Amino acid sequence: MHDPAVHPDDDLRALRRDLHRHPEPAWCEFYTTARLIEELRAREVDIQYGPAIHAADQRLNVPEASVRNEWLDRAREAGADAETLEEIGESFTGAVAVAERGPGPTIALRVDIDALPITESEGDDHQPVSEGFRSENEGYMHACGHDAHATIGLGVLDAVLDSDFAGTFKLIFQPSEEQISGGKPMAESGILDDVDYLLALHIGLDHPSGQVVAGIDDFLAVTQFRVDFVGKSAHAGGRPESGANAVQAMAAAVQNLHAIPRNSDGATRINTGLVGGGTANNIVPEHAFIDGEVRGETTELMAYMWDHAQRVIDSAAEMHDCEADIQMLGEAPSAESDQRLVDIVGAVARETPGVESVLDRDSLGGSEDATYLMQHVQNHGGLAAYVGVGTDHPGGHHTPTFDVDERDIAVGIDVLSASIREIAASDPNR
Amino acid sequence: MHDPAVHPDDDLRALRRDLHRHPEPAWCEFYTTARLIEELRAREVDIQYGPAIHAADQRLNVPEASVRNEWLDRAREAGADAETLEEIGESFTGAVAVAERGPGPTIALRVDIDALPITESEGDDHQPVSEGFRSENEGYMHACGHDAHATIGLGVLDAVLDSDFAGTFKLIFQPSEEQISGGKPMAESGILDDVDYLLALHIGLDHPSGQVVAGIDDFLAVTQFRVDFVGKSAHAGGRPESGANAVQAMAAAVQNLHAIPRNSDGATRINTGLVGGGTANNIVPEHAFIDGEVRGETTELMAYMWDHAQRVIDSAAEMHDCEADIQMLGEAPSAESDQRLVDIVGAVARETPGVESVLDRDSLGGSEDATYLMQHVQNHGGLAAYVGVGTDHPGGHHTPTFDVDERDIAVGIDVLSASIREIAASDPNR
Amino acid sequence: MHDPAVHPDDDLRALRRDLHRHPEPAWCEFYTTARLIEELRAREVDIQYGPAIHAADQRLNVPEASVRNEWLDRAREAGADAETLEEIGESFTGAVAVAERGPGPTIALRVDIDALPITESEGDDHQPVSEGFRSENEGYMHACGHDAHATIGLGVLDAVLDSDFAGTFKLIFQPSEEQISGGKPMAESGILDDVDYLLALHIGLDHPSGQVVAGIDDFLAVTQFRVDFVGKSAHAGGRPESGANAVQAMAAAVQNLHAIPRNSDGATRINTGLVGGGTANNIVPEHAFIDGEVRGETTELMAYMWDHAQRVIDSAAEMHDCEADIQMLGEAPSAESDQRLVDIVGAVARETPGVESVLDRDSLGGSEDATYLMQHVQNHGGLAAYVGVGTDHPGGHHTPTFDVDERDIAVGIDVLSASIREIAASDPNR
Amino acid sequence: MHDPAVHPDDDLRALRRDLHRHPEPAWCEFYTTARLIEELRAREVDIQYGPAIHAADQRLNVPEASVRNEWLDRAREAGADAETLEEIGESFTGAVAVAERGPGPTIALRVDIDALPITESEGDDHQPVSEGFRSENEGYMHACGHDAHATIGLGVLDAVLDSDFAGTFKLIFQPSEEQISGGKPMAESGILDDVDYLLALHIGLDHPSGQVVAGIDDFLAVTQFRVDFVGKSAHAGGRPESGANAVQAMAAAVQNLHAIPRNSDGATRINTGLVGGGTANNIVPEHAFIDGEVRGETTELMAYMWDHAQRVIDSAAEMHDCEADIQMLGEAPSAESDQRLVDIVGAVARETPGVESVLDRDSLGGSEDATYLMQHVQNHGGLAAYVGVGTDHPGGHHTPTFDVDERDIAVGIDVLSASIREIAASDPNR
Repeated sequence: MHDPAVHPDDDLRALRRDLHRHPEPAWCEFYTTARLIEELRAREVDIQYGPAIHAADQRLNVPEASVRNEWLDRAREAGADAETLEEIGESFTGAVAVAERGPGPTIALRVDIDALPITESEGDDHQPVSEGFRSENEGYMHACGHDAHATIGLGVLDAVLDSDFAGTFKLIFQPSEEQISGGKPMAESGILDDVDYLLALHIGLDHPSGQVVAGIDDFLAVTQFRVDFVGKSAHAGGRPESGANAVQAMAAAVQNLHAIPRNSDGATRINTGLVGGGTANNIVPEHAFIDGEVRGETTELMAYMWDHAQRVIDSAAEMHDCEADIQMLGEAPSAESDQRLVDIVGAVARETPGVESVLDRDSLGGSEDATYLMQHVQNHGGLAAYVGVGTDHPGGHHTPTFDVDERDIAVGIDVLSASIREIAASDPNR
Repeated sequence: MHDPAVHPDDDLRALRRDLHRHPEPAWCEFYTTARLIEELRAREVDIQYGPAIHAADQRLNVPEASVRNEWLDRAREAGADAETLEEIGESFTGAVAVAERGPGPTIALRVDIDALPITESEGDDHQPVSEGFRSENEGYMHACGHDAHATIGLGVLDAVLDSDFAGTFKLIFQPSEEQISGGKPMAESGILDDVDYLLALHIGLDHPSGQVVAGIDDFLAVTQFRVDFVGKSAHAGGRPESGANAVQAMAAAVQNLHAIPRNSDGATRINTGLVGGGTANNIVPEHAFIDGEVRGETTELMAYMWDHAQRVIDSAAEMHDCEADIQMLGEAPSAESDQRLVDIVGAVARETPGVESVLDRDSLGGSEDATYLMQHVQNHGGLAAYVGVGTDHPGGHHTPTFDVDERDIAVGIDVLSASIREIAASDPNR
Repeated sequence: MHDPAVHPDDDLRALRRDLHRHPEPAWCEFYTTARLIEELRAREVDIQYGPAIHAADQRLNVPEASVRNEWLDRAREAGADAETLEEIGESFTGAVAVAERGPGPTIALRVDIDALPITESEGDDHQPVSEGFRSENEGYMHACGHDAHATIGLGVLDAVLDSDFAGTFKLIFQPSEEQISGGKPMAESGILDDVDYLLALHIGLDHPSGQVVAGIDDFLAVTQFRVDFVGKSAHAGGRPESGANAVQAMAAAVQNLHAIPRNSDGATRINTGLVGGGTANNIVPEHAFIDGEVRGETTELMAYMWDHAQRVIDSAAEMHDCEADIQMLGEAPSAESDQRLVDIVGAVARETPGVESVLDRDSLGGSEDATYLMQHVQNHGGLAAYVGVGTDHPGGHHTPTFDVDERDIAVGIDVLSASIREIAASDPNR
Repeated sequence: MHDPAVHPDDDLRALRRDLHRHPEPAWCEFYTTARLIEELRAREVDIQYGPAIHAADQRLNVPEASVRNEWLDRAREAGADAETLEEIGESFTGAVAVAERGPGPTIALRVDIDALPITESEGDDHQPVSEGFRSENEGYMHACGHDAHATIGLGVLDAVLDSDFAGTFKLIFQPSEEQISGGKPMAESGILDDVDYLLALHIGLDHPSGQVVAGIDDFLAVTQFRVDFVGKSAHAGGRPESGANAVQAMAAAVQNLHAIPRNSDGATRINTGLVGGGTANNIVPEHAFIDGEVRGETTELMAYMWDHAQRVIDSAAEMHDCEADIQMLGEAPSAESDQRLVDIVGAVARETPGVESVLDRDSLGGSEDATYLMQHVQNHGGLAAYVGVGTDHPGGHHTPTFDVDERDIAVGIDVLSASIREIAASDPNR
C-alpha cells in the first residue's frame, strides 16, 4: 500500500506554492502552462499543448491581444521558458500529458489551472503571507484551489507512472474554468475521443480535511454573458435631452434581471458581477456594460433564466433609446457522476489513510465546465465522475483568505491514483 | 484701430495646436502649465505658479499620486521643462501672470486650461486630423475649447502689453474647470483680493463665428460627487444569499436619482456620468461607485437636488444592505454678469472688426467654476462678467468632433483686450 | 360705479356653498349642471345643454355607465330636477347661457365646474366645516375653486344683464377641466364659432386677496393617459415562473417614467397619479394600470415627454412579458393671453374697488383645457385672455384644506363684468 | 366493502354546487358556514361555531365591518338562516362538528371553505357554466376546490357515522385559508387540544383523477403582509417638488422586493399580488399600498425573505421621503406528514376502488395554514398527515377555468373515511 507519509513531497509543495505566487486569469495562464510543461518534460510522457488541444472556434471570452501580451510579458519576467511561451501561442493555454502504459483502458484526469481577479489577503494569519508565497500578480489570486488541483494532477501522474497501471493515462490541464470557457474547446478538440473513463476533482467546497466525496452532482448549468449598451452622449447640463443614457439602461437591466421570477422547478441564479459605464460626471453616458451570468439546477432552468435575461436586457436598452449587444462569454451544462465510478472511488477512499469520512454523493451548487468533458466522454459511451477532496479552508472559495491545507494534496493524490488503478483493473474489457 | 488681419499670428496658432495635441485632465495639466509658463517667461510679466496660487485645502477631486505621476511622465516625455514640472509640484497646475503697467485699476482675465476624457475623432474631415494636431494623449481631448481659451489669454496679454493700458493686468490660467474644482481654490488663494474687474470667457457655446455675447448668465449651480457602495462579496452560484450586492444598490440609486421630482421653481439636472462595480461574472459585487452631479438654475435648486440625491443614495445602499460613502468632488455656485461690464464689452464688440452680431445677454445652461472667481471679486466690491465668443464648431461641446474656427481666436483677443483697455479708461477711480 | 359692498349677495354665497356641498367629478357634474340651469332659467337668457354643446366624438375619459348612473342617482337624491337630468343625457354635462343684448361683439366667459377626488378636511378651522357646507360626497371635494368660478360666472351674467352692455354675452359652464377633457369637445362643438372675445378665469393660484392678474400665460401643455398592462396570472407559491407579472411591468414603468431626462428647452412634468394592479397576495398579478400625465412648457416639450413615456411603457411591458395598452384620456395645448385684452383687464382692474395690486402677466405653471377654447377663438381671428383673481386660500390647490375667501368672488365679478363692458365698448368694429 | 358506485350521492353533488355558486372570501364565509351548519344539524353531532372556535386575538387580516356586513347581506339574500348568521358573529366563520362514538382515539379532519377574488370563466366548456352553477358572487370564485373539500368533509362524516368507528371524530371547517390566517386562531382556540390524529386534504394539485398522495410535504412557510406608504400630495403640474410620491416608493419596493437574492439553501418566493396608489392623474400620490407575501421552503428561508423584504420596504419609503407602515396579514410555518399516518393512508388508498396510483410522498410547493393545525397536534404528541386527492382539473388552481371532476369527491370520501377507521383500529392505546 502506498504510504501517505511521503506526501506531499517537498517538490510538489514547492510547485503548488510557485503556482500560487503566479496566479493568472483565464486564457492567460502562460507562466502556469510553461511551468507545468517544464515539469512534464522531466517525466516519461507525451506532451501536447498549443492549438492542438483546443477547438479554436469554440473558445469564448478570450481577452484582447494587449491583455494577453501583458500576461505573456509577466510570464517571461517570472522566468517562464520563452520558447515554450511562443509555442503556446497567443492564448492556447493548458496542456495534456499522455502516458501509454501497455494494453488497457484510457483513463483521463482533468484539473483546472486558472486563477481569479481577487486581491489576496495581506493578513499575517494567511499562510501564503506568513510562508512567503502570496500572489505576486497584485489583484489576482488562486482563491479557488486550482494551484492545488494542478499539483494533485502531477502527483497522480507520478503515482501512476510509479505503479503497475496498465492502459493509457491522460492528464489534462484545462485553462479558463473560472470563466466557464475552457471546457468546451478542449472537449471538442478530439483529445477525449479515445477516453473510456474521466475523473475530475475539486478541493475544499466546504468539505473538511479528511472527507472525500466520491461523486459530486448538481452542477448548475450556466451561461456567462457580456452586454454592451450603446446610447448617445450629451452635455449633462446643457443638453440632457439629446442624450440616450446607457447607464440608465444598464441600471434598469440590473434591477430587472435580479427580479426575474423564481422558478418552482428548481434553483436558478442571476448575477451582474461586473458593470461599468460612462466617462465623466458631466457627460450623459454613451456606453455601459454588464458582465453577468445566469444559472439553473438543470439546463432547462438555465435556459429559462437566459430567455428572460435577454428580454430584460433588450427592453432595458429600448426603454432608454439605446442598443444592446449581447455576447456569450462562457457556458456549461449540467452533469451527473456515473454510479460505477462513484462506487470505485468511494471504496478506494474508504481504504485510503488520511480519509476519515466518505460521502457517496453531494451537490456542488455551483457551475463547472468539467461538465462539457464529462458529457463528451459519456456521449461516447464512457463513464465520468467528479470527485471532491475535502480541506479545511480558512476563507470561503473566491474570497481573499481562501487557502488549502497542503496535507490534503497528498490525500487527493492517493485517492485519485488508487482509483485510477482500480478503474483500470476492473475494466470489463480488460 | 487694431487690424484683425494680423491675427491669429502664426505663433498663437502654433501654440493652440500644441496645446490641442497635449490634452490633459483636471489637476494633471502639467505639460500645458509648463508650456504656458515658458511662453510667459518670454514676456515682461511676473509669473506665479505652484502652491502659491491655490488654497490647498479647498482643492477637491485631486487624482491619486499614481495617476498624477503618469501624467507628469507624459509631460516630461512630451518635452516639458523638468525643473518647471518640479516647481509645479504634484498637482498645483495653472499659472498667473501679472503685468503692472502704472497707476490704474487691477483687471483680471481668467481662462481655463484642462481637457476631457473623450477620444478625439479620427475622421478625415476633422481639422485636427487633416492638419496633423489630433490629440496625442489617446482617450483625452480638448473637446471644449480650453486650448483656444489659453491661447486667447496669451494673445490678450500681448495686446495689453503692446498698448497704452494703465493699471495692473492679471492673466489667470485656471486648471480643473471640467471637474468644477479649480475655481474655488484659486478664488480663495488671495490672487483675486486686489482685483477690481474680472473677465472670463468661453468660445463657442453654439454661438456662430462673428457673434459675441457681452454677458453670459444663468450658470447652473452644481455639485459633483462620488459615491462608493460597499457590500459583501459571495460566490454567485454557491452562496448568493450571503452577499450584499453593491451593484444592485448602485443600480437602484441610478434609477431613483434620475426620478427625483422636477421642480417648478426652475431647471434642475442630474447625471450619473461614470459608474462601475464588481469584479467578475460569478462573484456577487462587493463594491460599486457613481461619479455624478446635480445642478440647479439657482443655488437653492441645486441644494434641493443635492438633498434628495443624498437621501436616494443612502436609501439605495440600505435597501441592499450596503454602506454608501458620499464624497463631494466639485461645486460651483450661480453667478450673474455685472451690467456695467456688459455695457462696455457690448459697445467694444460692436466696434470690433469681424464681429457681426452682439447679444447683450445669454444663458449658459451649464455650470462653470468661474462663478467662484466672479463671486469673490463681486463680494469684494469689484465687478465681473463672463463673455461669449462665437465660433462655428462642427461637433457639439464634449463630443469627439468638436473644434473651433481658429480665426475666432483673433476676434476673442481683440474684443477682450479692447474691453480691458476701455474698462481701465472708464474706471471711476481713475 | 358698481358698489362692491353689495357683493357677494346672499344668493350667490348660498349658491357657491350649495355647489361646494355637492362636488362631482369630471363628466358627472349632474347636480351642478342641473342647479346652474335652474339658476339660468330665472334669468333672461337662452340656455343650451346636453349633446348640443359637445362634439361627442372628442370627449375622452368619460366614465363607465355604472359610475355615471351612480352620480345621477346622487344628483337626484340631492334634489336635482329629474327632467333636466334626463335632458343632460348620460354625460353631456355643462351648460351655455346666451344673452343677446343688441348689436355689438360676441363676448364669452368660460368657467369650469368639476371637482376632485380628494377627501375634504374635517378640521374645525376649515370654514366649510365650521360654516356647515363641507362636501356631502365623501371622497370628493371642490379643492380647486370651481364652485367659486361657477358662482362668479353667474354673478358676471347678472352684472352684464343689469348693464348697458351692447352685444352678445355667452356664459360657458365647462365640465371636466380637472381631467383636461372637457375643453376640446366644447371648443369643437360650434358654440365658439361666433365668439369675438373669450375670457376665462381662475381664482387663487397663490395670488392673495386683492390681487388680479390681467393675463395668465405659460400653461403647461398636457397629455393625460391610461395604460393597462396585461400579463398572466399564476399561483405565486406553486408556479411563479408561469406568470407574467403585470405589477412588475407597472413598477418598472413608474420608475423609468420619472427618470425621463430633463429637457434644457424648458419645464417638463411627469406623474403617475393613480395606479393599481393584481388581485390577491398569493396570485401573480395579471393586470395593472397607470393613470398618468406628461406636461411641457410648450407643446413640443410635452411631445418630447409623451414620446419618451410611450417608449418607456412599451419597454416595461415587454420586459416582463406583458402587453401594454395605452389610451389617451385628455390633452390640452399651450396658450397665450392676447395683449389687447390684457391691457383692458389690467386697466379695469386698477380701477376696481377691492383690487390692491394688478399684475399684467404671470405664469400658470399648470395645465388648463381652457387653452382649447382660447386657441379656437384665436384661430378664428378673435382674442382671448385668462384672468387670475387672487384669494387668500388656507390650503394649497388640490389639498384637503383648500378654500376661498368668499369676498373675492365679488371682486372677480366686478373685474370681469367691467372688463366685458369695456371690451364691447372699445370693439373696433363697433 | 364500501361501494363507490353510490358516491357522490345527489345530495353531496348538490351541496358542492350550491357552495360553488356562493363563493365567499376569507373571514366572510357566512353563507357557506350557515349552509354547512344547516347540514350538520341534520346529523347526530355536536356543533360548535362562532367565537368558541377561534382564538380571537390571533385572527389577522379580518376585513372591515363594512365589507363583512356587505357579505352578511349577500348571505341573507342568498337564503342563509338569519339566526345562525347572527350567532356566527361578525367574522367568526367556520364550524366544528364532533361525533363521539365510544372509546377510542380522537381523530380530526380539517377542510377549508373560503374562495378567491377571481372572476369565473364564462366559457361554455366550463362545467359550472354549462351545468348552471357558476359563481353568483361576481368577481369571486371557488378556484381552488374548497367547495369540494367541504363536501368531502361532510361525506366523510356520513361515512364515519355510518360505520363501526370507535372513538371521537371531529370535522373542522376552517375559514380563511387563502389568506393564511384561519389556521392559527383555530389551532390556538383549544379545539385541537384533545386530538390524537389530524388529517387534512387537498384536491387536485396537478395530480390526475385516480391518484392519491398519502402524505404531502414541503409546504412553503409564508408571511403575507400589507404595506402602506404615506407621502405628501401636491399638484403634479404646479408644485411637483413639494410632494412625496408614495407611488414611486411603492414601485421602488416592488422592483427591489423581486430582486432579493436567491438563496442556496432552498426555494424562496416573493409576490406583490395586489397594489394600488394615488387618486388622480394630476395629483402627486400621497398614499400607496402593497399586499404581498414571502415564502420559503423552510421557516428559516421564509424569515430570510421577510428580513430582506422589510428592509427593502423601509428603504424604498425613505428613498422617496415617505413613511411605510408594515402589517402582517397572515402566516404559516412549514410542516411534515408523519410516516405512520402516511403508511396507513397509502395502504388504504391502494385498496380503494377508483384509485389507480398512490404516491407515498409529494411536495406541495405552496403554502397552507393547515400546517398550524398539524404543528399543534404534533406538538401535543399527536400525529398529522396532509392527503392529496387527484382530480383532472381543466384550468390550473387559482385560474378562471379551474374545476374538479365531481367523481373524485367520492374517491376522497372513501380514502379518508377508510383511513380514519383504520387509524382508530390500529391505535396503539386502543
